[in-house]
Amino acid sequence: MIDYKLLQASAEVIRHGSFEKAARDLGLTQSAISQRVKLLEDRLGQPLIIRSKPIAATDAGKRLLQHYQRVSLLEQELYEELPKLHSASHFGQIAIAVNADSLATWFVKVPKRLFDELDLLVHLTVDDEALNHEALQAGTVLGAVSLRSDPIQGCRVRPLGAMRYIMVVAPEFRDRYFASGVTADALRSCPAVNFSRHDELQNQFLNKYFGLVPGEFPAHTVPSSQGFVTVAEQGIAYAVVEEHQAAEGLRSGRLVQPCPHVIERPLYWHHWNMQSGLLSQVNEIVLGEARHYLPQIGN
Amino acid sequence: MIDYKLLQASAEVIRHGSFEKAARDLGLTQSAISQRVKLLEDRLGQPLIIRSKPIAATDAGKRLLQHYQRVSLLEQELYEELPKLHSASHFGQIAIAVNADSLATWFVKVPKRLFDELDLLVHLTVDDEALNHEALQAGTVLGAVSLRSDPIQGCRVRPLGAMRYIMVVAPEFRDRYFASGVTADALRSCPAVNFSRHDELQNQFLNKYFGLVPGEFPAHTVPSSQGFVTVAEQGIAYAVVEEHQAAEGLRSGRLVQPCPHVIERPLYWHHWNMQSGLLSQVNEIVLGEARHYLPQIGN
Repeated sequence: MIDYKLLQASAEVIRHGSFEKAARDLGLTQSAISQRVKLLEDRLGQPLIIRSKPIAATDAGKRLLQHYQRVSLLEQELYEELPKLHSASHFGQIAIAVNADSLATWFVKVPKRLFDELDLLVHLTVDDEALNHEALQAGTVLGAVSLRSDPIQGCRVRPLGAMRYIMVVAPEFRDRYFASGVTADALRSCPAVNFSRHDELQNQFLNKYFGLVPGEFPAHTVPSSQGFVTVAEQGIAYAVVEEHQAAEGLRSGRLVQPCPHVIERPLYWHHWNMQSGLLSQVNEIVLGEARHYLPQIGN
Repeated sequence: MIDYKLLQASAEVIRHGSFEKAARDLGLTQSAISQRVKLLEDRLGQPLIIRSKPIAATDAGKRLLQHYQRVSLLEQELYEELPKLHSASHFGQIAIAVNADSLATWFVKVPKRLFDELDLLVHLTVDDEALNHEALQAGTVLGAVSLRSDPIQGCRVRPLGAMRYIMVVAPEFRDRYFASGVTADALRSCPAVNFSRHDELQNQFLNKYFGLVPGEFPAHTVPSSQGFVTVAEQGIAYAVVEEHQAAEGLRSGRLVQPCPHVIERPLYWHHWNMQSGLLSQVNEIVLGEARHYLPQIGN
C-alpha cells in the first residue's frame, strides 16, 4: 500500500504550490515535508514536483494528487459513520471551482447547505473557465460550475440550467445616452463595463443584437461581480448582467432595462465520476439549488 | 522619433498578452500587427515579445510599454485642450490596480468620479499585492492601491489611511460556538472564512489575539468580497472583515461583533512620478475618497 504520510505531504505541496504552506497546514517543519516528498520520489523513481517558482506538479504528481483527494473524500464518508476515527476537527472538506456570476447569484446558498447538511468546509476558487477545467483535471477541485459543456476525462457533466443575461442602466444614463433608443451609434459613444479586458458575454450581446465588434465601443473594466453592478447603478456605464444580479436594482428603480434583448447561456456541473455517497449528496445540493433559481434548458 | 504606429501595436500586444486581442482592439488584422512588431524589433535589433503561451515581454518590451503608456497619458491631457485632435471616442483611459477590500469599500466612488470629472474610462485589475506591484512596474497600470509601502522605481508612494479589520458573526453562530466567549479553544472548533487559501490578515488577527497558527483552526475559502460577508451572515463561519463591509450587516443585526479586537493596516497609493496635470487630478480624487472614508494614520 502507498505510504499515505508521504503522499499527504506531496499532495499538500502540490495543492498549495508551496512547501512552506504545506508545512504550516500539516503542522510540520519544511524540512520534514521536503524529506517526505523526496522519499516518495525516490521510491517511485521519478519526480513529483518541479521545483520552479511557483511550484508545479509533474504528470505523476498530478495523478497522485488526484488519488489523494479521492481517498480523502472516501475517508470523510467513513468519518460520518465512525466519527471517533477522526482525531482533529470533525469537519470534512470539499473544493469546488465556480464562475464569478454563479457565485454572485444562484450558488450563494450552496456553501451554507454543504456546511449545515454535510458538515463540510467549503473551499471555492473563482477563475476563468479554462483554469477551472484544469483544476478539475488536476484534482485540485472535486467539481466545477462552468459554461463549458465538453466533458473532462474521469468526470461526469450535467446541465444546470441557463444563465440569462440582460442589459441594464441607471435611468439617468438611459436619458442621457439612449434618448433615441439603444442603437449601434449610441453604443459607440457611451461606455459599457467589462468584467475583464475581454468580456466574451458582453461582446456576444453587442455583436448579436447591434453588429458591434470589440474596439468599436468604449468600456470600463471592473473585475468584481458586485462592482460591476455598482458601476451601472452609479450611471457611468451600461452593463450586460445575469438577471438575478440586476433584480434588486430593477425592483428599486436604480436600474432599468433599456432594451428587451436576452442572451441565454447554458451552465454545467462537472464532477468526478466515482461511487461516493457523499459526492451524490453534494451533487443533489448543487443541482437542487440550480433548479430552484435557473430556467431549465429544453423545458 | 519613434514610429508610434509600430510602438502602439507592440505595446497593445504586450498589454493584452495576445496578438489576436491587440488586433481586435486596434481594428487591424493579426498579420498587420505581427508585421509592425517584427519591424520594430528589427529596427531595435532585439526582441520585444517572447512568443510563449501566454505572451511575455522582454525587458526592452516592458520599457517600451511604459513609455507608450506615459505618452498616451500626455496625449489625453492634450485632447482636453484640443478636443478635435482626437478622432475616435472622446474618452481618455486609465488603468489602476486595486486590492479587493478597497474595491468593495472606500474605492467604490473613484471610477464614477474619474469618469464624471475627467471623462476617463477606468480599467481596474484586482490581484494580489505582489502582482499589483509588478503591473505598476511594467507600466500596465498607472497607479496601484496596496498594503505594501515599499516604493517602486519611478513611482511615488503616499499614505491613504488605515483599513480597520474586525471579527463579525451571525447572532446564531455566536450563540452556538461563542457561548462562553471567543477563545482559542472555541476558534479551534468552528469555521473561519478565508478569502484565499492563505488569508494573511485573518491569520494575523487570530495569531495576535488568540495565539493560533494556520492549520489549527478550520476554515472555508470564498474568494469574493461579497461572498465573504454573505457566508458570515449565513451563519456558517466567523469572518475578519474591513469594517465598512460589515457596516450594513451590523446595523441590520444580521451580524454582531463577538469580540472587540481590531487590526489596523495602513494602505498606500503608488503612482507614476511624472509631471502631468491629469495625473494630479487622478491623485486628488483617489486621496480625497480615501480621506473621506479611512481613518488617517498618525492622527
